Amino acid sequence: MDKRTEISAFGEFGLIRPLTEKIELKNPGTIKGIGDDAAVLDYKEKQILVTTDLLLEGIHFDLTYVPLKHLGYKSAVVNFSDVYAMNGRPKQITISIGISKRFSVENLEELYSGLQLACDIYGVDMVGGDTSASLTGLTISITCLGEADKDQIVYRSGAKDTDLICVSGDLGAAYMGLQLLEREKKIFKGEADFNPDFGGKEYLLERQLKPEARKDIIELLAENGIKPTAMIDISDGLSSDLLHISRESNAGCQVYEDRIPIDFQTASMAEQFNMNLITAAMNGGEDYELLFTVPLTDHDKVSAIKGIRVIGHITKPELGNFLIGRDGGEVELKAQGWNSLAN
Amino acid sequence: MDKRTEISAFGEFGLIRPLTEKIELKNPGTIKGIGDDAAVLDYKEKQILVTTDLLLEGIHFDLTYVPLKHLGYKSAVVNFSDVYAMNGRPKQITISIGISKRFSVENLEELYSGLQLACDIYGVDMVGGDTSASLTGLTISITCLGEADKDQIVYRSGAKDTDLICVSGDLGAAYMGLQLLEREKKIFKGEADFNPDFGGKEYLLERQLKPEARKDIIELLAENGIKPTAMIDISDGLSSDLLHISRESNAGCQVYEDRIPIDFQTASMAEQFNMNLITAAMNGGEDYELLFTVPLTDHDKVSAIKGIRVIGHITKPELGNFLIGRDGGEVELKAQGWNSLAN
Repeated sequence: MDKRTEISAFGEFGLIRPLTEKIELKNPGTIKGIGDDAAVLDYKEKQILVTTDLLLEGIHFDLTYVPLKHLGYKSAVVNFSDVYAMNGRPKQITISIGISKRFSVENLEELYSGLQLACDIYGVDMVGGDTSASLTGLTISITCLGEADKDQIVYRSGAKDTDLICVSGDLGAAYMGLQLLEREKKIFKGEADFNPDFGGKEYLLERQLKPEARKDIIELLAENGIKPTAMIDISDGLSSDLLHISRESNAGCQVYEDRIPIDFQTASMAEQFNMNLITAAMNGGEDYELLFTVPLTDHDKVSAIKGIRVIGHITKPELGNFLIGRDGGEVELKAQGWNSLAN
Repeated sequence: MDKRTEISAFGEFGLIRPLTEKIELKNPGTIKGIGDDAAVLDYKEKQILVTTDLLLEGIHFDLTYVPLKHLGYKSAVVNFSDVYAMNGRPKQITISIGISKRFSVENLEELYSGLQLACDIYGVDMVGGDTSASLTGLTISITCLGEADKDQIVYRSGAKDTDLICVSGDLGAAYMGLQLLEREKKIFKGEADFNPDFGGKEYLLERQLKPEARKDIIELLAENGIKPTAMIDISDGLSSDLLHISRESNAGCQVYEDRIPIDFQTASMAEQFNMNLITAAMNGGEDYELLFTVPLTDHDKVSAIKGIRVIGHITKPELGNFLIGRDGGEVELKAQGWNSLAN
């Protein structure tokens, strides 16, 4: 049997220490991490990016099929993704955890090992946090700080008429991964061990359970001298996030169905589920790919980068926001992202 | 009857907007607040202080007797207090809220009005956040950023042998306020309206429900040319927080019972409750007063400041940490702060 140490074996003060005492600070700008009233950072001439996320059990994640280490990894990575979406580099995070008695110290260590792994891979320092009891379930709150040169920050608001709309990677796989996990959960309901066979669908599961932030794309854009005019990461779904860009930029947009990048496993799963593939790709969410616009003059440069696809272009605001189908038909884009408050 | 708008009437995306759209940014260093993937801040040559807190219903607050506006105010202020405790100035906060269906939009507005009031009074910008459904209760997660000149930051670790130990305001009142509220809650149990008479005990309630961060003390110290050698805010209780300083500074300490500042209402309430007054003052917590050390040579300067009391001095580490009683007896200090995980 796995070792189980009750959380109450540690005091509140004692708990955060063993989890964080091995942390070695990586960034010279991290002057003081965990251990005082506040962390101390130095960004010198850089500007500071701040983003925050609150993740609640039963709303944002389901521990039936999400391993705690993966949950920790994903919780950190989605915050890094927000910083990259500003064309910045994540540097520090603070992590607050609320846990009920259902969890053991070993569970908490697992969660932290995922958080730490993400920090190691992305070069981010864990500089603060808080661990507390909770009456029910697991609560994770993360704030991420990052840096950018003032003239390199990319907002949602800079897209201009005729700009090209680009997207990294492929879309809809994370959503299909979720559908798959939800289906298996229903099948396995009542059985103690949840251990289904996901052979041939590993990519979908990985996209859902262990997404990556597109650090590589941000670096490729910089290497190729491309500064996007507007950028956002796709967390709510392509439709919703594209609408954020066009609204903030006071513009319209046209994207082409046959340009939307979709992986083979996503397509095959959609067929199996008898779901509309393009709906999954447009509205699925949680892809954490980068959606950005570049001037038309960057067409050749951006097209040459592997892993980036031009999917459409920005228009005047009065032209609205449309998906152009394979048959030439137009469908107006609507925000249909995953909405945790509607449930 | 009060107006009640269901939270579900708004989408997740729509909810944060009406609550935050009236925000006017106050600090020139706040380049971009709410509305993009991350907030953008500029600290120029200053260093950045970051502190975070997670507050869970039933663990950190009890809505039976805590009005939502007060809860919002206190949630913000306790974070500002951490920044002041580094000798910094709070500048921005991010606020994430998880709420169950039990709450209405009007409830959320009340909570935000308290958060906003605190931000207005302390000159802090609300720059980000997240609002989400929760399955049970209310969750509040706040991260506060502040600034300080590099050479003005005060850590817990700088206290030296013979330094004077100082404390602002008075201690134990917040704890007594909590005891009072808990007692009345028991008395009123089962009755729909919780509206007891707290005449003559207003100070205790205010200290518990609407504490202030000691911005004024930080400013007075600066005006008088005093830079503490170590500082912390008293959130866990004088004993615990003093032990943080002596441990981090590799020192010991002696404080004198007859020097501990205690308000008349606190003393009178302790008598009524038949509680040990000095225990309440030493271990009560949530006072959010500043505990700091200054060199012996600053004795006259610091003693002249109204609202600051010298309560003892730092010793060599091998002498340990002691409270010297009125009769000259010594009691070793122990961390007995409020421990949310032991419950």
